[in-house]
Amino acid sequence: MKKSIPKKTVQRLLLYYRSLNFLLQQGIKNISSKSLAGLMEIRDSQVRKDLSYFGHLGKRGAGYDVLELRDKIARILGIEQVKNVCIIGMGSLGSALAAYKGFAALGFKVRAVFDNASHKVGRKIRGYECRPMEAMEKIIRQEDIEIAVLTVPADAAQEIAVRLEKCGIKAILNFAPVKLSLSRRVKVSNVDLAMEIKTLSFFIK
Amino acid sequence: MKKSIPKKTVQRLLLYYRSLNFLLQQGIKNISSKSLAGLMEIRDSQVRKDLSYFGHLGKRGAGYDVLELRDKIARILGIEQVKNVCIIGMGSLGSALAAYKGFAALGFKVRAVFDNASHKVGRKIRGYECRPMEAMEKIIRQEDIEIAVLTVPADAAQEIAVRLEKCGIKAILNFAPVKLSLSRRVKVSNVDLAMEIKTLSFFIK
Repeated sequence: MKKSIPKKTVQRLLLYYRSLNFLLQQGIKNISSKSLAGLMEIRDSQVRKDLSYFGHLGKRGAGYDVLELRDKIARILGIEQVKNVCIIGMGSLGSALAAYKGFAALGFKVRAVFDNASHKVGRKIRGYECRPMEAMEKIIRQEDIEIAVLTVPADAAQEIAVRLEKCGIKAILNFAPVKLSLSRRVKVSNVDLAMEIKTLSFFIK
Repeated sequence: MKKSIPKKTVQRLLLYYRSLNFLLQQGIKNISSKSLAGLMEIRDSQVRKDLSYFGHLGKRGAGYDVLELRDKIARILGIEQVKNVCIIGMGSLGSALAAYKGFAALGFKVRAVFDNASHKVGRKIRGYECRPMEAMEKIIRQEDIEIAVLTVPADAAQEIAVRLEKCGIKAILNFAPVKLSLSRRVKVSNVDLAMEIKTLSFFIK
């Protein structure tokens, strides 16, 4: 099933998950596709289409059971599955991400943080002992880490990415402003903050 | 012309800009659309299509003059225009962004940083004096700030976004994991780090 779900749908499912959690917190137990669509500012036909990927969830006229739908979406997204993550590059962005609570909320556990600066290695940063780059492969295997968050300078990113692929990393969240060249086995998602703000400002009148 | 350029093209233009700068650093003065496409890992028909938005830039058979193309793209993107930015929310992410060199490289100048915590206000954070939230509107007008980077908790984001719209902010780079509800006059770009990593991990085998 995974392969057939478009990326955009997965992203919306995460928004559903958040919205449904919000409704539960408000004590709301039942919701129509129309109200859910209103909350998320999308069309209700889109809601019905998205949820149809996962079988018949709503009852005609009765709306969706919020808790049931939330739990179903959590299972589809694998929210309850903990995935081990490492962060490579303990500059200001890497350190901020080490402290970022949003990862834990979605089932990600930071198992190791790395840097090559001798004044950082061995020290605690945001509660994590900073490990040396030489030990990266060994620790990734030991700690069963599947996902790497890459916050190193642009000119170091490709070389490290190749090392990550070789030691079995399955996905890289890349903050370095370069396009990584890897095999298709490794999923890469790029977050380019400077480009985000530049694209945004281009469309300012 | 601005309105007719698709967002994806603007994003690719930024990649061209980076690639062309890289070529100049290597002393390469001339490049074919095919080589440029190879460097960026896109099709060369795409390169020709993208650049055709901006008039006839390449000469048939002679390729592109790297410097001329870089400067032309810089002008189109407005790289040389400095835009004033503020950062709202001096937690770990806001502080990391205040120190982020990528903004300055693309012509953004951080003119003010804000927080509502009394132990932060008045102190220097990453070289910037942290200002109180009450003074936000006044400072944004005084400093001619057009873009706000929003790194506040999710439950505070909408209220602050409304205040930003009222005082004339033109664009918001929103890191809070909520959908902001504003008029169309304000351009909003959402960066949801937890969602990025979750979407990525969903497609891991």
